[in-house]
Amino acid sequence: MSTIDPGDRSLAADLPGLDLITDSDVLDSLSHDDAEWAPTGRPVGAIRARTTEEVTAIVAACAARRIPVVARGAGTGLSGGANAVDGGLILDLSRMNRIVEIDPDNMIAIVQPGVVNDDLKAAVAAHGLWYPPDPASAPWSTIGGNVATNAGGLCCLKYGVTRDYVLGLQAVVGGPAGPYGTAVRAGRRTTKGVAGYDLVGLFVGSEGTLGVVTEVTLRLRPARTAAPRTVVGAFDNVVAAGNAVAATTRAGLLPTALELLDRACLRAVEDWKHLGLSATAEALLLAQVDTPGEAGHDEAAALAQVFRDAGAQWAEHSTDELEAEALFAARRLAYPAMERLGPVLTEDVCVPRSAVPAMLASIEAIGARHGIAIATVAHAGDGNLHPLIRTRTGDETAREAAQKAFDEILTEAIALGGTVTGEHGVGLLKRAGMRQELDPPALSMMQALKRTLDPLDLFNPGKVIGL
Amino acid sequence: MSTIDPGDRSLAADLPGLDLITDSDVLDSLSHDDAEWAPTGRPVGAIRARTTEEVTAIVAACAARRIPVVARGAGTGLSGGANAVDGGLILDLSRMNRIVEIDPDNMIAIVQPGVVNDDLKAAVAAHGLWYPPDPASAPWSTIGGNVATNAGGLCCLKYGVTRDYVLGLQAVVGGPAGPYGTAVRAGRRTTKGVAGYDLVGLFVGSEGTLGVVTEVTLRLRPARTAAPRTVVGAFDNVVAAGNAVAATTRAGLLPTALELLDRACLRAVEDWKHLGLSATAEALLLAQVDTPGEAGHDEAAALAQVFRDAGAQWAEHSTDELEAEALFAARRLAYPAMERLGPVLTEDVCVPRSAVPAMLASIEAIGARHGIAIATVAHAGDGNLHPLIRTRTGDETAREAAQKAFDEILTEAIALGGTVTGEHGVGLLKRAGMRQELDPPALSMMQALKRTLDPLDLFNPGKVIGL
Repeated sequence: MSTIDPGDRSLAADLPGLDLITDSDVLDSLSHDDAEWAPTGRPVGAIRARTTEEVTAIVAACAARRIPVVARGAGTGLSGGANAVDGGLILDLSRMNRIVEIDPDNMIAIVQPGVVNDDLKAAVAAHGLWYPPDPASAPWSTIGGNVATNAGGLCCLKYGVTRDYVLGLQAVVGGPAGPYGTAVRAGRRTTKGVAGYDLVGLFVGSEGTLGVVTEVTLRLRPARTAAPRTVVGAFDNVVAAGNAVAATTRAGLLPTALELLDRACLRAVEDWKHLGLSATAEALLLAQVDTPGEAGHDEAAALAQVFRDAGAQWAEHSTDELEAEALFAARRLAYPAMERLGPVLTEDVCVPRSAVPAMLASIEAIGARHGIAIATVAHAGDGNLHPLIRTRTGDETAREAAQKAFDEILTEAIALGGTVTGEHGVGLLKRAGMRQELDPPALSMMQALKRTLDPLDLFNPGKVIGL
Repeated sequence: MSTIDPGDRSLAADLPGLDLITDSDVLDSLSHDDAEWAPTGRPVGAIRARTTEEVTAIVAACAARRIPVVARGAGTGLSGGANAVDGGLILDLSRMNRIVEIDPDNMIAIVQPGVVNDDLKAAVAAHGLWYPPDPASAPWSTIGGNVATNAGGLCCLKYGVTRDYVLGLQAVVGGPAGPYGTAVRAGRRTTKGVAGYDLVGLFVGSEGTLGVVTEVTLRLRPARTAAPRTVVGAFDNVVAAGNAVAATTRAGLLPTALELLDRACLRAVEDWKHLGLSATAEALLLAQVDTPGEAGHDEAAALAQVFRDAGAQWAEHSTDELEAEALFAARRLAYPAMERLGPVLTEDVCVPRSAVPAMLASIEAIGARHGIAIATVAHAGDGNLHPLIRTRTGDETAREAAQKAFDEILTEAIALGGTVTGEHGVGLLKRAGMRQELDPPALSMMQALKRTLDPLDLFNPGKVIGL
């Protein structure tokens, strides 16, 4: 993999001033995202683009040679969506990390795709504004990657997902828009707008299969004035915690976040970070309420009561801000903490909220049946569960059992009226599950859209609908 | 128009049990929406469908004969999107008005397209739930029509538009999905989901040009517990009111609704309904705040202060619920009240909020230049303005002047970074404006999507992207 063939050398010749990376160590590091077990192809090289014009030239040159283009940001994806494909170019957008504009009067920001989510949050906070989408990867993941997967996070329960914040974008495309390498602007700067089809919504969540997004116009919200309140409940088992989740919705309560952490996750974080968490319960529910004033106090108290009524060992409206921060930090660190312990196969099913207890019970049963450890962390209030299936490096039997458990969890989620992916995307790992989930005519329509907008199958081929 | 040719009679023969309406009076009433001046074609007939299966049969039969299908709900559209086309069938969905399911545990409703917006609101309210999108036409317009145009309304400032509430849908389509008449399910019941491309988002706002939507799965919210507070400000002129709108956003305030009514609109409503409104100011701003408790009181007070600082004659945090209701009723009645006075050409531009004062000044200047009366009602907080251009029946000179003013308003909105349609849709009236607004490659992509998903150009041909 340290040399590329002469045909590919001509790609470099066509792109003067751009550094075509062919060093095998660097290529290896750029060839995959955070998804365990997703296959990785052998790329011809990588380029770190800095401007839309460079992306335009790169896409045109690749199209001329039929070299697939796989765009990537920080590589924090969990479905293999950014994994290299054989003979393809890796287009690294992490250096396109400029915040182009913050417009406080209209509460919008325009950013390049490589801007890190938390960096954007900090920049707009200085203007009294807030960008809500908060995937657990927010300290590292980029807006481009968030847009590619329609990333969710903790606070989407109340504030929605990435798609709800993307007003407009610029993308480098081919096909009906013009020759490959054409830059197109879709969407708008206004809060409302219905002039033509929703191209923006189509690109969000398309995982780089329809073009390369080079600029994003984002809607912002006013910064929250009051510190959010935290409610914590401890439960004897995850299913009991799931019952409390269902009861929360039934009570008409809409916290900002409603997260579930099981004992294995809590312990993994504590062993790593020593945050001072005690893990006496089998499952914790963490809720955040941001309604200001007395009404927020009442909402938090009502939530704690719902937890108690659902059988919590204890439930508290936390008054200790440090403790609350530690708990949410633990939630965010659950995935990397588990990853430290060995290979993890991450699930991302989403079921109707009323089905959360049943789904959690099924996950336990599936783990027991295959004799494997499944830790669970969840955006439980959204019905979005992340069972983390653990294995041991080099243990092929355990790996096969994990794969079976993975597939059974997907099947069960579909049976409960859910989806195989709530926020991580299809990438490579969920392609079979997606086919199982979708109505066949809908899949045919998606494939037709891909063929229409990318007739050369140049952009991230094989991912998502995987022609 | 009272007879149809033999070729079309065979359509009726193919659809036993379905009543093909050919009575010219009935056809006339079903041939247009509420858009003045949009051209109306001569249909071959109309059918009032009651089930998805009937729609399936109708679409298949029409496809076999290349008879275009124009779906319609209540006909309250304002862009001609539901107007009949020559030789086409009118597919009236207003009888498909069943609420299929209300699921309080998951806060969703599944409805047929003919359900009236306010009827849905009332039905879910009985379960302690709320369906926020509230176009002024809510007492009459259907969810199907709301989905077709991605309808907005008053409270979208804080709670979003129709697209934000559509989780899933069923549509009868043709092309890549299968033979014309294939029913496809897209989307989901869960709050999150990223399995494949966003077909749902693509259908919402496509104005019936990609297929016929026969069922919609909607996200709901918990009912609001506190009665909203109303803040009213009176201004010397509409531009001053516009300045207050811009100042509201700048102050980080996010009321539920922020509406503008000028004197002409207020007077037209009062002359008609005698609500007891006094119209001493040139423009009123009506805001609603639904933050509960003391924080809501503070927010309303801050808003009144912003109005005063921006030069309001007076601004009050209304404590009289009846008065507040009368003012919002007046806002909702503004359009029909103006329509009573003669033909009205309704605009629907949306500009960045900071450009609202400039846009209002331009509208005044354009009216003065052409010597025509333009009344303005606006979802001002969204930057979504509805200048109502008045003419007199039979006055061709006035009509031409109105058309010129209409076009100039669109051009000005685009120049200010806005869009030609915020929520009414493109239909027939905004086709030229949309072409002016869109990046040409984006238009080409939309046309390619239409050709791909509706290769026969069967569904509402000539509307929106208008092949």
